[in-house]
Amino acid sequence: MTRAHETSVTRDGPPAAVGMAIEEVDTPALLVDLDALEYNLARMAGAVAAAGLRFRPHAKTHKCAEIALRQVALGASGICCQKVSEAEAMVGGGVRDVLVSNEIVDPRKLSRLAALASRVMLSVCADDAGAVDALNAAAAEHGLVIRVLVEIDAGGDRCGVDPGEPALRLAGHIASSAHLRFGGLQAYQGRAQHIRVASERAGAARAAASAAGRTRDLLARHGIACEQITGGGTGTWAQDAASGVYTELQAGSYIFMDADYRANRTADGGEYGEFRQSLFIYTQVMSAPGRHYVVLDAGLKAVAVDEGMPVVDGLPGIPYVRPSDEHGMLDVRANAGALRLGEKLRLIPAHCDPTVNLHDWLVAVRGDRVEAVWPVVARGVGR
Amino acid sequence: MTRAHETSVTRDGPPAAVGMAIEEVDTPALLVDLDALEYNLARMAGAVAAAGLRFRPHAKTHKCAEIALRQVALGASGICCQKVSEAEAMVGGGVRDVLVSNEIVDPRKLSRLAALASRVMLSVCADDAGAVDALNAAAAEHGLVIRVLVEIDAGGDRCGVDPGEPALRLAGHIASSAHLRFGGLQAYQGRAQHIRVASERAGAARAAASAAGRTRDLLARHGIACEQITGGGTGTWAQDAASGVYTELQAGSYIFMDADYRANRTADGGEYGEFRQSLFIYTQVMSAPGRHYVVLDAGLKAVAVDEGMPVVDGLPGIPYVRPSDEHGMLDVRANAGALRLGEKLRLIPAHCDPTVNLHDWLVAVRGDRVEAVWPVVARGVGR
Repeated sequence: MTRAHETSVTRDGPPAAVGMAIEEVDTPALLVDLDALEYNLARMAGAVAAAGLRFRPHAKTHKCAEIALRQVALGASGICCQKVSEAEAMVGGGVRDVLVSNEIVDPRKLSRLAALASRVMLSVCADDAGAVDALNAAAAEHGLVIRVLVEIDAGGDRCGVDPGEPALRLAGHIASSAHLRFGGLQAYQGRAQHIRVASERAGAARAAASAAGRTRDLLARHGIACEQITGGGTGTWAQDAASGVYTELQAGSYIFMDADYRANRTADGGEYGEFRQSLFIYTQVMSAPGRHYVVLDAGLKAVAVDEGMPVVDGLPGIPYVRPSDEHGMLDVRANAGALRLGEKLRLIPAHCDPTVNLHDWLVAVRGDRVEAVWPVVARGVGR
Repeated sequence: MTRAHETSVTRDGPPAAVGMAIEEVDTPALLVDLDALEYNLARMAGAVAAAGLRFRPHAKTHKCAEIALRQVALGASGICCQKVSEAEAMVGGGVRDVLVSNEIVDPRKLSRLAALASRVMLSVCADDAGAVDALNAAAAEHGLVIRVLVEIDAGGDRCGVDPGEPALRLAGHIASSAHLRFGGLQAYQGRAQHIRVASERAGAARAAASAAGRTRDLLARHGIACEQITGGGTGTWAQDAASGVYTELQAGSYIFMDADYRANRTADGGEYGEFRQSLFIYTQVMSAPGRHYVVLDAGLKAVAVDEGMPVVDGLPGIPYVRPSDEHGMLDVRANAGALRLGEKLRLIPAHCDPTVNLHDWLVAVRGDRVEAVWPVVARGVGR
């Protein structure tokens, strides 16, 4: 870096101050309802503990050390991260046990990962023998032993070796690496989480658990024990907990929820309402030109639309119909007088994780008051 | 803010250092090819100057003071921003003339806008008489006069009063406000920019210019002069420049380009190749499990997909078929041996603006070397 401004820069200031009334919060802002958040945190922690399992919630959802520390305080054995830099940010925020539930192959990233493993309990996944060798070399350079899980493709068609023999070969390779320790199986089925019909969702979860269980048994016959079988998500956690296979759950979105998860159906066809909606985008009507729509100040840069449009909280008849970079269009034909220029309202995002990643601050409200403002310390920290 | 960590926080460190070979850049990272950027900057600046018009490029595309200052150095009279905080960040980076090409209605935002107007040349748009009164009050409190443009709906169906009489009434209201000065018309037709067929795109641009011209003439008949008529974008700038109506152009995406703009057709049906692709996401193959796909480390948190999937630069037969939060799936069936685990490659984003807004740093490369690393100072600065 040769120029002064090429060093680190400070983020935008917070949109709220502690004690403010919610109406004073600047828009657009990311809000979390603390009553709903605490309900969700306690409910999942209690359910996983009651099942006798370990809990390692995924921090990619919140990217916020404050929430990670609350999860640990409620019994989580640690957290999951997807990236080395995300893990660094969470460790910087006080977390002491991180599983990077993802493959890391770049030599520089592996070196940073090993450096982090010298400070806290750090585990990582692998699905390639060459990457395992590179990780072993990085661990050797730092004079330590790193715990490595074999990721199996549990039906999500993404990363991971095939269950069975390929997993056995890679587990053996890890176990025979001087600076690595085989830590078990990563068996997350991402696709299953969002299957709408409960029986089909449960079927995909059963198939994932079955693949993991068969692999565990194969490894056992070859003298390799799986310390943990970790996976599960907000859509399938109950089946995963009851599977008899998973020893650790990784659900993340349960803390916030979103319109996409809420579109999952329960076994009796009802809405998936086990967890409360705690995450919102606070936004303002910034143009009301007297046509069939009003314009919000929250568009593509404030709310993710990859899983569909956000939903206006409490006004189901007024759809968010079109985003542009900085604007969101609400169709008000069904209720033309409902929204005035300058009015503030809350949106429920369709997809919580990428929405959170757009914001530097999380405004924590209780009732109509701001109780805390938390930095999203790992926002954009994705390397 | 009552807790230590609730003050401002530092962003993630840069993914590259000046002088690095491009292969050493950490992934995912936002890259700009300087040769292509400089070509685009010079070409548009020259064309707008040759047309005898003013140029006020939109900074919402790059959110980067380094690029704004280059645009000004090449003759731009200032820049456009969409948000007050975005304007503050750009002024902090050295820009001295900003048009907030958007409506601002919140009293706190208006107060910040007026404070900024006391430091630099600051203009803003309006489409509501009540908002004009609030702006006048904020300007009065700061003891200054703020330049205000009337935004007309030029066919984009978003913000803006209707052309003609409604614009006349609002312009008169501004002109009679003690602390405001009527600055002309904002007539940006956002929808026209992405119409694929050249004749239809030109038709929408003509309609926008015509609405602005008729409104200008109506105002003139009532003794109100339009100092500027400003608008235009990367898709319609040539028609806008030739319209005889616009006095100032606002194109922004021309500096970077994206797959969506490139899908526009020229009059002879060809690709819209007037500007070069300068913006890329640098990414790495982080899993290659031997199936019909490989997995990149760039997903929804590294590249915007609201206008479609990104395109792999130089490998047209390998489509990016599915993003998840931190992963991108490439279908490699057409060329199974083309990509190895650990290989780095470049993606062309479908939509440049929201993609840039995901990244804290812009890595400026010339050939295969990193020449500069620029902070995206207004990333996430959207209030």
